[in-house]
Amino acid sequence: MNEIAPKPAFRYVGTRPVRPDGVAKVTGTARYGSDYHPPGVLWGKMLRSPHAHARILSIDPTRAEALPGVLAVVTGSDFPDLPFQFSGPERLERNVWYDLRNVMAREKAYYHGHPLAAVAARDEATAKAALALIAVEYEVLPHVTGLEEAMAEDAPLVHEDMFTRNVTPKPSRPSNIARRWESTVGDVASGFAEADVIVEETFRNDPVHQGYIEPHACVAEYAGDGTAHLWVSSQGHFQMRDLTALFTGMRAGDIRATAAEIGGGFGGKTKVYLEPVAMMLSKKAGRPVRMVMTREEVFRATGPGSDTRVRVKIGAKKDGTIVAGEAELAYNSGAFPGSPFINGCLCVFAQYAIPNQRTVAVDVVSNRAMTAAYRAPGAPQSNFACEGVLDVLAKKLGMDPFDLRIRNAIRAGDPQVGDRKMSHDGFAEMLQRLKAHPDYARPLGPNQGRGVSTGYWHNAGGDSSATVFVNTDGTISVATGSPDIGGSRASMALMAAETFGIPYERVHSEIHDTASVGYSFITGGSRVTFATGTAVVRACEAVIGQLKARAAQIWGVEVEAVDWSDGAARPSSTNVGRFEALTIEDLAAKASATGGHFGASHSENMTGHAPGVSAMFCDVEVDSETGAVKVVKFVAAQDAGQAIHPSYVEGQIQGAVAQGIGWALNEGYVYGADGVLQNAGWLDYRMPVASDLPMIEPVVVEIPNANHPYGVKGVAEAGMVAALACVANAVADAAKRRMTHLPINPPRLLEALDERGAEL
Amino acid sequence: MNEIAPKPAFRYVGTRPVRPDGVAKVTGTARYGSDYHPPGVLWGKMLRSPHAHARILSIDPTRAEALPGVLAVVTGSDFPDLPFQFSGPERLERNVWYDLRNVMAREKAYYHGHPLAAVAARDEATAKAALALIAVEYEVLPHVTGLEEAMAEDAPLVHEDMFTRNVTPKPSRPSNIARRWESTVGDVASGFAEADVIVEETFRNDPVHQGYIEPHACVAEYAGDGTAHLWVSSQGHFQMRDLTALFTGMRAGDIRATAAEIGGGFGGKTKVYLEPVAMMLSKKAGRPVRMVMTREEVFRATGPGSDTRVRVKIGAKKDGTIVAGEAELAYNSGAFPGSPFINGCLCVFAQYAIPNQRTVAVDVVSNRAMTAAYRAPGAPQSNFACEGVLDVLAKKLGMDPFDLRIRNAIRAGDPQVGDRKMSHDGFAEMLQRLKAHPDYARPLGPNQGRGVSTGYWHNAGGDSSATVFVNTDGTISVATGSPDIGGSRASMALMAAETFGIPYERVHSEIHDTASVGYSFITGGSRVTFATGTAVVRACEAVIGQLKARAAQIWGVEVEAVDWSDGAARPSSTNVGRFEALTIEDLAAKASATGGHFGASHSENMTGHAPGVSAMFCDVEVDSETGAVKVVKFVAAQDAGQAIHPSYVEGQIQGAVAQGIGWALNEGYVYGADGVLQNAGWLDYRMPVASDLPMIEPVVVEIPNANHPYGVKGVAEAGMVAALACVANAVADAAKRRMTHLPINPPRLLEALDERGAEL
Repeated sequence: MNEIAPKPAFRYVGTRPVRPDGVAKVTGTARYGSDYHPPGVLWGKMLRSPHAHARILSIDPTRAEALPGVLAVVTGSDFPDLPFQFSGPERLERNVWYDLRNVMAREKAYYHGHPLAAVAARDEATAKAALALIAVEYEVLPHVTGLEEAMAEDAPLVHEDMFTRNVTPKPSRPSNIARRWESTVGDVASGFAEADVIVEETFRNDPVHQGYIEPHACVAEYAGDGTAHLWVSSQGHFQMRDLTALFTGMRAGDIRATAAEIGGGFGGKTKVYLEPVAMMLSKKAGRPVRMVMTREEVFRATGPGSDTRVRVKIGAKKDGTIVAGEAELAYNSGAFPGSPFINGCLCVFAQYAIPNQRTVAVDVVSNRAMTAAYRAPGAPQSNFACEGVLDVLAKKLGMDPFDLRIRNAIRAGDPQVGDRKMSHDGFAEMLQRLKAHPDYARPLGPNQGRGVSTGYWHNAGGDSSATVFVNTDGTISVATGSPDIGGSRASMALMAAETFGIPYERVHSEIHDTASVGYSFITGGSRVTFATGTAVVRACEAVIGQLKARAAQIWGVEVEAVDWSDGAARPSSTNVGRFEALTIEDLAAKASATGGHFGASHSENMTGHAPGVSAMFCDVEVDSETGAVKVVKFVAAQDAGQAIHPSYVEGQIQGAVAQGIGWALNEGYVYGADGVLQNAGWLDYRMPVASDLPMIEPVVVEIPNANHPYGVKGVAEAGMVAALACVANAVADAAKRRMTHLPINPPRLLEALDERGAEL
Repeated sequence: MNEIAPKPAFRYVGTRPVRPDGVAKVTGTARYGSDYHPPGVLWGKMLRSPHAHARILSIDPTRAEALPGVLAVVTGSDFPDLPFQFSGPERLERNVWYDLRNVMAREKAYYHGHPLAAVAARDEATAKAALALIAVEYEVLPHVTGLEEAMAEDAPLVHEDMFTRNVTPKPSRPSNIARRWESTVGDVASGFAEADVIVEETFRNDPVHQGYIEPHACVAEYAGDGTAHLWVSSQGHFQMRDLTALFTGMRAGDIRATAAEIGGGFGGKTKVYLEPVAMMLSKKAGRPVRMVMTREEVFRATGPGSDTRVRVKIGAKKDGTIVAGEAELAYNSGAFPGSPFINGCLCVFAQYAIPNQRTVAVDVVSNRAMTAAYRAPGAPQSNFACEGVLDVLAKKLGMDPFDLRIRNAIRAGDPQVGDRKMSHDGFAEMLQRLKAHPDYARPLGPNQGRGVSTGYWHNAGGDSSATVFVNTDGTISVATGSPDIGGSRASMALMAAETFGIPYERVHSEIHDTASVGYSFITGGSRVTFATGTAVVRACEAVIGQLKARAAQIWGVEVEAVDWSDGAARPSSTNVGRFEALTIEDLAAKASATGGHFGASHSENMTGHAPGVSAMFCDVEVDSETGAVKVVKFVAAQDAGQAIHPSYVEGQIQGAVAQGIGWALNEGYVYGADGVLQNAGWLDYRMPVASDLPMIEPVVVEIPNANHPYGVKGVAEAGMVAALACVANAVADAAKRRMTHLPINPPRLLEALDERGAEL
């Protein structure tokens, strides 16, 4: 086992101060997507398809336009089209031809709820009334919503001219299989030949929603001179700006996008839905336009996480050493290609050292709302399969499930799928620590079972920028462009405080609009504390350089003779006693008189992020009368590298597990034969509430990432990745039934208890 | 005569594109001080003193607080006090003890209209009704409003304990003369002894208002966690932030101040009036508070330009060479010390080479609204006196008035008052050019006269910051913190376009809040195009350095092998042909893949500004029946160094002259014996309207300032400095009456025509 370096001690990093946005959020003054009120703002509403699949023969907005109080109606023809083979900047790599059609239908309505037209009117009631006056002629087409049905030979074609990509030779006929991806490491056949035990199983899950509290909302203000302001609740206002510009024929730099507070996103607020439409309505109406989705619209027309089918086969030696793995994945992407099926491959075996492995995955379209990212997009589904197979394998081998995982825990340098190599160590140590947790030895009660699992998410770096200023009173302003979902303003302030050596309370950390800070990619993939945090620290260091230079100038010494510590420039060893320390407040007060104020910007595409690895166990209790499962205990560990604000790391672990429990036990879209989602609301789509959940005990492991100034590793995803299997494995232990289709809701479990004999 | 270097040619600098804020202002969507609507915003209103001078015995807000709909009442006792000898950062050098009392009275009401209390209520009507319920007990005191009355031995004392500062020995008794300043160059007595001709005269002017269209307005939002947002129409939101913080006991960095559009300021919006009060009301009410002055409040309680008395004596040889000058100035500062009396001294003789000169000035308090800066604060009044005396001198010597001024025109290195030395050349050349203007030879009609004058304003540099980014589409964002009064957004964009070598249309120039850009001092003194412009150019240069480095990285060459021109990185001479140029759009598209995006901040206290010098002549026609003066021709020249956007330079010259004509002919405060301003509105305070004015022909001279990247000299003030005397000298020529008291309104001129014989 490699030696893990001891963690350095910090003064502010690792403390738990009140977040900068705390009081505003608690007192209700924080401003979300709809809380912006420019004079003359109109209400925008979408007309949505009543059919799951239909050709649009004509749209006539005449009567709607004539309704008093209606200022603009837009349809697909108002938007510029984009070439099918779009060659844009790499950040827009997805096929924008599809994305644009998802924003507003043109030739066809691809799903029930697909936007067909939009109205801007003086009030919401008038806008709704106008929608009813838009005349649409359809040719209704046969539809398909389920993953396996969509893959069937005779399935209705969602896109009549779609041929599977990345297949040689090119398929002879179109299908709903949009793309294929595969990767092989080692020699899989030989690997399995060496195995003493082989376990193979197929797993499925229903589509699930991210379940953010705040629906999509924005205000667009087209200014009449070609420039515009976009007020938007999203995971990335730079991204919203760029996509809105692309889909409206504007220039990205002409749009100033302001990040509203965001009431949850979990990946679902990385796509544009309303923004280009609100912008086009505003352009046409000459007035600002507000659009806010209803909850039903959120369910019907924004991206869920994919329903999938994942077959996993693992072979091991008697001692538990895994010698081969194979995974075959199919992901439902909804109306347009773009599911995270490749992530499913990249994460399915990623935390284990498997010398021979092969993954094959396909991206499948269907007549359903297009999928969107959801917390480690694609990974929970494939992890559910792998960890379920490992659970069976451990039982077959008679091994403790942690021991099986410890034996195969990946180490830095070990190969992963897709020519990757593991970059960081510490996974085995975390597993050891969790196995030693006292609750793992707790005797189980009647009808109780215990499950173990682990999870992996590769995390992300990417483009981030920060600007840091010393204010006139010596306080620090940290300006970044990364929307704050999980408390990142506090983390940025803590890292700045640590770097300057000043109290957290003297740092102001805010999210700024696209015209006042440098480019930052979306908040997602656990990249912000790592990448934007690094940008903040680099900008702070540049400012400290300026402050030291100013002190050197004041003292008449070389800058090398100035040290910086505890918020002050201090004479270095050779000069101790010659000069009084100059605090940041002193230097701020003297700034103007000595040459000017202090500030620096830093932009960088950050690399060196560490993957997030988690491990957990939980106890469940099964009610064999009702099929209900109660989670009675949950202990979840994750390597945070360094927890900048431990409460928010713990919150990420707890939130991720809570969502994973919902996914495992209750959540799932139910479609009717008509292709209409039947549970498009909180009452029928059952997310866990507080009373459904136990106290989730977070165990924060800290093995610093040497590529971040304070050792950060992303923490938001790996907990949810592992939680699905952890619950399902516990259910298998308690109910003696291996449930392979999520959610394991009471009807399904009851059916299994009734119909099947005890399984592993 | 020194050789003036030829002006360089530019591609974008010097052109006249549409300003970035143009469409918004023309279409009415630009947001000014009151155009911000946070949810729950309250109306704030001030209770103001009905007496010109009174001791406040008690203020009882009980009944007002009890009125339904009233959420907060504040009085002086709600604000922290500050020590009389305040030792703060240099930018707050004025005596803040006075300034704080000007914002809200405590012990005494010092003028009619002085704020005594303020109310925040759910609507304006409720707020007004509440004001009437505040019970105030006064002890009315004798008052004094006029300058000469205030200086009288037996004048009522505005501040009972005020002893004139900078006088040795300390005066034995208090007076209304707050401060004294003097400066001597050479030997004045010997100088006058050498003179062949000596002219001495005393000049006066009434108080005048800056006359901005938009009254003072702000919205304060205290957040409950000690932080706040301030939306403010001002000449400097950093200044408003710092003063609001100081006067409310907050930390400057805790306030984020956003610059609203500003509907004129001319110096009058450099002081806080409403902002600390709105903030305190918001803190007390727990809701945002909007305050907007009525026009009457603007007149009664915001700063006018000083009424003054200036005696000037100049001695010259027969050939016109000035050998000595003496000026004695008294400035009325209103309720608290702070008039720009020292500027009067610094500018009175500044554009002339006078070997022996002495200036003495006093700052006088009275029971009137405290003076504020007004376009070259203090300089027009003293210039009026000097240029009037020169006019008499030229006539006595039989010299053309331009020739007299050319003979004495200051040159670089010549001494000025207060140990200063002239820094730039070109004044004599400008005078030569203007004298050669064809209209100067135009024969005058009946009752017409021609006046000549020149003006000087030292201009300013100071603290400015800029942040410059390359957007994802290759457009540029320029973020600064200098409120745009005169088109500076366009100037910043032009300078950025020139520096990058890209079209103006590809640059976005915006003013940002105090949390997202570095510190910038107020917009005033013609410092922005010079200082903030330099910061923008420096930040652009830093970004170009990043772009060149990236191109070098892409090409695999040293950065020295990369040139930048016309918006692209190009291989330098040794590499021509080896690589294709990489445009800024190319580099933006490749940014993420090659290391990250581009941006830089620059903060500096800029020095090296050049003074503004102007020269002008005008023709007037006097109606001897009515005493009315019509300006029939006006030609005004100013050295702009380099006109970045010539239309706005011309606009500055025209606007300055227009204000100077108003000051010369019509504008002035009229106080009753009760100390109440009698003309507190547009109908009674007569500013010139379009029909009062001739076409003012601007002559833009361009002798670059070597200390600015594009040669900028400030242009906003010197035109107004000279215009008062220019009109008065023309009136003297036409009416054969030397009018020494401004405004030269019809009653005054008629009286002079009736009572006095012809004078020079």
